Amino acid sequence: MGASPGEFEIIRDFFASAPQGEGVVLGIGDDCALLQAPSQGQLATSMDTLVAGRHFPADADPAAIAARALRVNLSDLAAMNARPLWFTLALTLPESDANWLRKFSSGLLQTAAQFGVSLVGGDTTAGPLSITIQVIGQTARPLRRDGAGCGDSIYASGPLGAAAAALPVILGDQRVPAEVQHQAERAFYFPEPQFATAAAISDFASSALDISDGLIADLAHICESSHVSADIYLERLPVSSLAQSLAGANALSLSAGGGDDYQLCFTVPPDKVESVEKLGLGVTAIGTLSAGDAKVRCWHNGEPWQAPTAGYQHF
Amino acid sequence: MGASPGEFEIIRDFFASAPQGEGVVLGIGDDCALLQAPSQGQLATSMDTLVAGRHFPADADPAAIAARALRVNLSDLAAMNARPLWFTLALTLPESDANWLRKFSSGLLQTAAQFGVSLVGGDTTAGPLSITIQVIGQTARPLRRDGAGCGDSIYASGPLGAAAAALPVILGDQRVPAEVQHQAERAFYFPEPQFATAAAISDFASSALDISDGLIADLAHICESSHVSADIYLERLPVSSLAQSLAGANALSLSAGGGDDYQLCFTVPPDKVESVEKLGLGVTAIGTLSAGDAKVRCWHNGEPWQAPTAGYQHF
Repeated sequence: MGASPGEFEIIRDFFASAPQGEGVVLGIGDDCALLQAPSQGQLATSMDTLVAGRHFPADADPAAIAARALRVNLSDLAAMNARPLWFTLALTLPESDANWLRKFSSGLLQTAAQFGVSLVGGDTTAGPLSITIQVIGQTARPLRRDGAGCGDSIYASGPLGAAAAALPVILGDQRVPAEVQHQAERAFYFPEPQFATAAAISDFASSALDISDGLIADLAHICESSHVSADIYLERLPVSSLAQSLAGANALSLSAGGGDDYQLCFTVPPDKVESVEKLGLGVTAIGTLSAGDAKVRCWHNGEPWQAPTAGYQHF
Repeated sequence: MGASPGEFEIIRDFFASAPQGEGVVLGIGDDCALLQAPSQGQLATSMDTLVAGRHFPADADPAAIAARALRVNLSDLAAMNARPLWFTLALTLPESDANWLRKFSSGLLQTAAQFGVSLVGGDTTAGPLSITIQVIGQTARPLRRDGAGCGDSIYASGPLGAAAAALPVILGDQRVPAEVQHQAERAFYFPEPQFATAAAISDFASSALDISDGLIADLAHICESSHVSADIYLERLPVSSLAQSLAGANALSLSAGGGDDYQLCFTVPPDKVESVEKLGLGVTAIGTLSAGDAKVRCWHNGEPWQAPTAGYQHF
């Protein structure tokens, strides 16, 4: 519905050629896509919106915007230990700009191919630039956030703080050498969905989520869902080297409170910790869960540590 | 990801109480919803965006906006002869207005309950008001738009032109009595997904779609997908009585070219026409398909008729 000028041309020229993978009976172009669900397991689905000026600068490289939009959605599937199958795209554009669309669709379909997920439908409308993507995957062993228990160890899957530290560079407020600029753009626009780690820990972890709003804020969701409290020890945090070089003394704060890294935060019961450590995943134990009122307490070298911000605002 | 101020409160207070129906293993609140796909048939999925100032006035009743947003998506399922299962909502709001959200979520969940579809996830972000909904349904006998053939009869499932004729009333450009105002609002905000008609014709129809952009524009999609041409005879169109009373002499044009009615346009092979007519569905034969170059030709009392507009712009 809601044809904007050129809607059908946009779909035909830039998106209808999307390769169609597993389970796609009928792709883009009808009232609905028709999909054959896998016979095993459950479907996992998630939806995220990125708004220009809030989640990315409006003048950013369209291919990078597309990559980020799809990757943050895929990260939700990864955090659930679901493998990607299909996605749909709602693209709202101020104007039909063929050059912008060519770069955007190229970035989108390249990312889709990399992760083996098929674009099966969507909608284009005229309006302020925003991108909503819905992903659907399949999981046989879902990682939920409500299964954590007292005494479980808390883990981070990899370096934290890079995307938050990159933000001033992305926004043009911090000038850095070209190589660092490139690293900052990779950290912000190309987060890595943690599919391999999620699959590896799925037999052992009691809960997991992806760190999109910041470690402290997201760990609080595990605590709320699982009715536990958390103590984390900031000296153990895997602070990203990019965050250290870009943010200096502020890197620790960004690792604890900054968002957009899309690493996993997960918990492991005491009797499974050894099994997880043996996997050699490069994950880091950063704290412990206890009974209580769903609070996250932060410590730094034995002293209570107060987060400068509870969550994270992009712009 | 992308927490806006109050995002979690919005979800908890206004949407997390959504009743969870068939196949919902885990609803709102985790990285993904977990869904058990039906063992039979295929999944059908569609996604539509409504942008304030383009698809509805920004100051419209939030419950009506919500109803329309969900109904136009459900209409895509109906047009595919799919029964609704689940939907997700991406809501972009300029500000967190509890009063607005209460009315919106009430309208949304009421509509969901009416059609037996479960809200299983979504995203709320700060930005210019827009609503993207993705629906997922199940179908055993999908109605596609690429199965029509030469000689098939073209049908409209019910009255056309009401929503287009209602638009000046909705926009406040045409003053009418309260009762007519109410009819106009029903026509525009509460289109009826044609589930019953789709199910009834699914054994006989060769193609179908919902008329969202206007009969002529949407019939052209059947012609393109099925590689046929169409002749429609405008004197046969089921012009809505509301369109006649609101638009007078312009009602026929609105019925042929105006959008947003969400009636079905479908085609029936010659040997199935009698079966369809016997169903007593109140559908109307409006033309015939022939070989050719995917054109829609309009006739009025034997004379060629030129559409004033090919498609339809809301605002």
